[in-house]
Amino acid sequence: MIKKELTPVHLSKVTIDGPFWAPRIKINRERTIPYEYKIFKETGRIDSLKSGWKPGTDFEPRYFGYGGIYSWIEAASYSITIQPDARREALIDGLVKLIAERQQPDGYMPGSHKDVEPEKRWTSLRDHSALFGGLLEAAVAHFQATGKRTLLEVACRFVDYVDTVVGSEPGKKRGYPGHEGIELALIKLYKVTGERRYANLSKFFVDERGQQPHYYDLEARERGEEPAPFWAACYYDREAKATGRGEDLQPFWEAPNLGIGAYFWAPVRTVPYEIPYEYNQSHKPVREQDRAVGHAVRATYLYSAMADVAAEFGDEELRAACDRLWNNLTLKQMYITGGIGPSKLNEGFTQDYDLPNETAYAETCAAIGLVFWAHRMLQFECDGRYADVMERVLYNGALSGVSLDGEKFNYVNPLASLGNHHRQEWFDCACCPPNIMRLIVSLGNYVYSQSETDAIVHLYVGGTASLRVAGQTVGLRMDTRYPWDGKAVITVEPETPASFGLKLRIPAWCTEFSLKVNEMETESLKPQRGYLRIEREWKDGDRVELNISIPINLASAHPKVRDDVGCVAIQRGPLIYCIEQVDNNVLPYRIVLPQDAKLTESFEPELLDGVVMVRGDALVEDDASWDGKLYRAGKQELRPFKVSAIPYYAWDNREAGEMRVWIRTDS
Amino acid sequence: MIKKELTPVHLSKVTIDGPFWAPRIKINRERTIPYEYKIFKETGRIDSLKSGWKPGTDFEPRYFGYGGIYSWIEAASYSITIQPDARREALIDGLVKLIAERQQPDGYMPGSHKDVEPEKRWTSLRDHSALFGGLLEAAVAHFQATGKRTLLEVACRFVDYVDTVVGSEPGKKRGYPGHEGIELALIKLYKVTGERRYANLSKFFVDERGQQPHYYDLEARERGEEPAPFWAACYYDREAKATGRGEDLQPFWEAPNLGIGAYFWAPVRTVPYEIPYEYNQSHKPVREQDRAVGHAVRATYLYSAMADVAAEFGDEELRAACDRLWNNLTLKQMYITGGIGPSKLNEGFTQDYDLPNETAYAETCAAIGLVFWAHRMLQFECDGRYADVMERVLYNGALSGVSLDGEKFNYVNPLASLGNHHRQEWFDCACCPPNIMRLIVSLGNYVYSQSETDAIVHLYVGGTASLRVAGQTVGLRMDTRYPWDGKAVITVEPETPASFGLKLRIPAWCTEFSLKVNEMETESLKPQRGYLRIEREWKDGDRVELNISIPINLASAHPKVRDDVGCVAIQRGPLIYCIEQVDNNVLPYRIVLPQDAKLTESFEPELLDGVVMVRGDALVEDDASWDGKLYRAGKQELRPFKVSAIPYYAWDNREAGEMRVWIRTDS
Repeated sequence: MIKKELTPVHLSKVTIDGPFWAPRIKINRERTIPYEYKIFKETGRIDSLKSGWKPGTDFEPRYFGYGGIYSWIEAASYSITIQPDARREALIDGLVKLIAERQQPDGYMPGSHKDVEPEKRWTSLRDHSALFGGLLEAAVAHFQATGKRTLLEVACRFVDYVDTVVGSEPGKKRGYPGHEGIELALIKLYKVTGERRYANLSKFFVDERGQQPHYYDLEARERGEEPAPFWAACYYDREAKATGRGEDLQPFWEAPNLGIGAYFWAPVRTVPYEIPYEYNQSHKPVREQDRAVGHAVRATYLYSAMADVAAEFGDEELRAACDRLWNNLTLKQMYITGGIGPSKLNEGFTQDYDLPNETAYAETCAAIGLVFWAHRMLQFECDGRYADVMERVLYNGALSGVSLDGEKFNYVNPLASLGNHHRQEWFDCACCPPNIMRLIVSLGNYVYSQSETDAIVHLYVGGTASLRVAGQTVGLRMDTRYPWDGKAVITVEPETPASFGLKLRIPAWCTEFSLKVNEMETESLKPQRGYLRIEREWKDGDRVELNISIPINLASAHPKVRDDVGCVAIQRGPLIYCIEQVDNNVLPYRIVLPQDAKLTESFEPELLDGVVMVRGDALVEDDASWDGKLYRAGKQELRPFKVSAIPYYAWDNREAGEMRVWIRTDS
Repeated sequence: MIKKELTPVHLSKVTIDGPFWAPRIKINRERTIPYEYKIFKETGRIDSLKSGWKPGTDFEPRYFGYGGIYSWIEAASYSITIQPDARREALIDGLVKLIAERQQPDGYMPGSHKDVEPEKRWTSLRDHSALFGGLLEAAVAHFQATGKRTLLEVACRFVDYVDTVVGSEPGKKRGYPGHEGIELALIKLYKVTGERRYANLSKFFVDERGQQPHYYDLEARERGEEPAPFWAACYYDREAKATGRGEDLQPFWEAPNLGIGAYFWAPVRTVPYEIPYEYNQSHKPVREQDRAVGHAVRATYLYSAMADVAAEFGDEELRAACDRLWNNLTLKQMYITGGIGPSKLNEGFTQDYDLPNETAYAETCAAIGLVFWAHRMLQFECDGRYADVMERVLYNGALSGVSLDGEKFNYVNPLASLGNHHRQEWFDCACCPPNIMRLIVSLGNYVYSQSETDAIVHLYVGGTASLRVAGQTVGLRMDTRYPWDGKAVITVEPETPASFGLKLRIPAWCTEFSLKVNEMETESLKPQRGYLRIEREWKDGDRVELNISIPINLASAHPKVRDDVGCVAIQRGPLIYCIEQVDNNVLPYRIVLPQDAKLTESFEPELLDGVVMVRGDALVEDDASWDGKLYRAGKQELRPFKVSAIPYYAWDNREAGEMRVWIRTDS
């Protein structure tokens, strides 16, 4: 029976003081968390929570309306975990009180505009889900941070109520949420409370999804509607038939009841082949799925829950489904930044290798969802391919979701921009800003794992940790400037000398490293599935020094990725680079970076809170000789040009301009 | 005082039998013209003409509803000019009779849904123009073809009526059409009738456009509307403000009253900077304009009229405006195919050098409008730069508008396709099919010009012509397989021996040619402004043999064209080539054509009604070594590949697939 071999080391056992992440976490704690509270207040969310939503009030909770507040409680709870703060705790408790007061006598928690029509509570799980996980995750984090059970009890009462309504038992609805999320939250709640019903309910949701007769068909008919989900109505066909000129119209979906904005436009490339129920991954039972489809956030939350349920129930079939989906998503549908879901149309997946750069949707929440999933997969078996993806997303496509000052946010994370894209102060659909906030403040959760036999380092992040290994508490102290350089010094601090393995991840991009234990070069260890394992009797103060050489190289994409052919991306260790107009006195699209270009690096402490800038010997087309012509025969003339590139996560923190990750190259 | 130095040789004096155009004209005459008549019948247009449009009838004439029928009469008249056909003439006369019966007692001609509210006839020239030129052009063609005055008289009565309503005299409306077209048609009508008022009215329309107070402001206020044209309402700003997430929404215009389709989508690149009145070129007086803006068909029809009015009135200032607009349009806003107007948003122009390929709108009608304009500019002074553009458009971006079988049509003419673009059998806005039909059948109009001193050959098209030069009629007989090869033999047949110049165009792409007169090599003549001039005493049977070498070369675009950097286009003489998936066993986007690639040609008589296919030594990225990876470091591997290219005009005549004109190259 499979299970997760590893256990993550919890945030509360980890401190972070390394130069890359500590400032990001500090800004998150000191600026982003207060900023978002202020926004919740200003946008009427907190008032709405206080008084209950009524028609005509400013803020409409819509479908996931209180989700942001739950995420805020979760993030703020993490923040007081890593740095106690009585005022913040009081603020959290204030919200918790409001939430508790909003709970209905039967345990139901309002959270959508259907609340004013209580009889409609269970009429449309597809679109107006009564099933949301944010409350549960907030409750777990609040309880773990404070020991207070108030919110945990609200969450349990809510789930207990849900459990009376849905499930496989006769008389219950065989429904499941249109937007996944509660499944993984139920596993968290189960782990904290020990209540097995919660894990069972999660498994029910996972397994019921996509079964026939299709629940969303049934509930639609009960509402007197046609089963065909009207939110998937594709005008494209209709227009094409009506006018005979479909070829020059762009497809779009009208999605009025998603409430996120009236319309979604499709990138030119993205033809809406999608079968409607693929949107929420209910097109077939999850065990039969082998391609990541539909809304990318929904997808990653589901896949995370599938991994959790597989582990909790020792379910190999489910784990195999996870692996199939993982391979499809990470080997055919993932941007080099770790962003996923190229299409605005469905905020999600399209075809394999369809990864347009300028129109990339690559929602911040989807990247975060991929971190969640990767982290769960990693615990099954310590395999670097999961950690590699987790690291790729963290340092690139997720971190790009928030500005360096912590108060502006990307909903979408394109890999090329004409300068018309900027982080916003807020979004009407307030999912991404709280989500990136809770991820960054809880980064400590992702650094280490432990098992009976091993202490495991997944990420090189300076700080300390306290692990349970070999029956005792083992302290680790890590000193590193990673990813700016590749040296990491780990001091091992067991309570008493003990034999166990110390596993250190060697990223897939790393081709050269050296290792010393107590100043002695080790014999040539080889990484197994991405990890070195050093087994010995560890004594307090043993010192391991790992030197990963961090190369700058040019990556290319599989030739099936049509938008990246003829292009390279600069990567330096885990960081993907981009070229911004502001650093270069020509428009980035005009730059050609030969495949054998000389590339140099320098750490610039004043630039973008301190980054390693990469410079290279590039070329640009010369237009001096064009003399007013628009077209001409003959060879193009190129002149030498020094290109400057910065880490992708830090783009769009200065003046507006063109940006691109994929740079033209020679061939 | 400027005037047009040259006079075009009229269609009725020209025959065409060369292997390139004769088959196209034959298919046009035998298939396209009957096909379109059938469609007009089937879509209710002819019934509507018969009975008058009433609410609820199938066909709504909308704004330019009878335009197609007028174009059909014009094209059919040309066809009986070049090949008499009594049945067709009877069909034309039948339509003429219906049209005459529809004329109102005051001379007004119905043609829009406003007809059911006659009092609204003059309330919105901006959108529902009562001012249309198709009738006039049809009338002139019909009169010239048949000598019958019926339609000409209808047209004159209509214009006489219009002339009582609009104009600069006190009490008249200072209005002008929202869709230009009548201006150039009035000049045609003037030339046939000698009625100077018609030329004056044309000049009034040209000069009044864009004057202040703005007529469209005034008429909007009279309708009780705000002057801001609601058809230019850009949802982009509104959405961006409302949701704070404008950066990931595509801009679009709602254009319900254009009747062409409910919505226009903007390509991602095309931000709607446009000031609304630029849409119909009324943003400022035409003499002050120096950039081609707005709806491209409207623009070229206006510019054509400006050239006509400048010539008729000896107006140098207007001519200078034409030159400025010409330089902007052809040197900064024209596709290599001669297509113009990149954006779906306004069916027109955007920014200089904004020439996206996949989303190119490049409407067939706009290409045709550019032919009209180029042809008019060419008559001012025999300058090859006008003829070069005229030829470029004719052989590429215009001819691509119709299928080889003559019964399918392109509204838009992209320079790259993923295989989702196909010629259609019809369009609700039926402008392009009749327009390309009338252009092809009247190709004879574009081949020659004459002046007192010169016989001029603009295009190499096999056939005969009868010119007026040096006070007598001069016959020319041209034998050529151009553009398949570059030899043209011209036999000169004056009535009596006479001295005059024979001017032969040397296209700008031609770097090598030879010339024999009566088998004798001439001394090395140099082209002046694109034309060789051979002056001598010509005798009946004098034989001139021009050999233009037709190179295949690779063109590049100015580096400011962001969508063409790193790419080349294959051109062979006047023809632009494209690569279609059907001829190549890899997707065209994967092909790299080195700048020094060896290119060979062969005429394939069975392929696409006979074309010269170009083959080249190219490369493609090899994916055999990728082994399931999505990204990797290191050099890309390329393997040799033989690419096959066909002329762009012939694309999409076989099975669906990817196409591109601009091919990746090395650097």
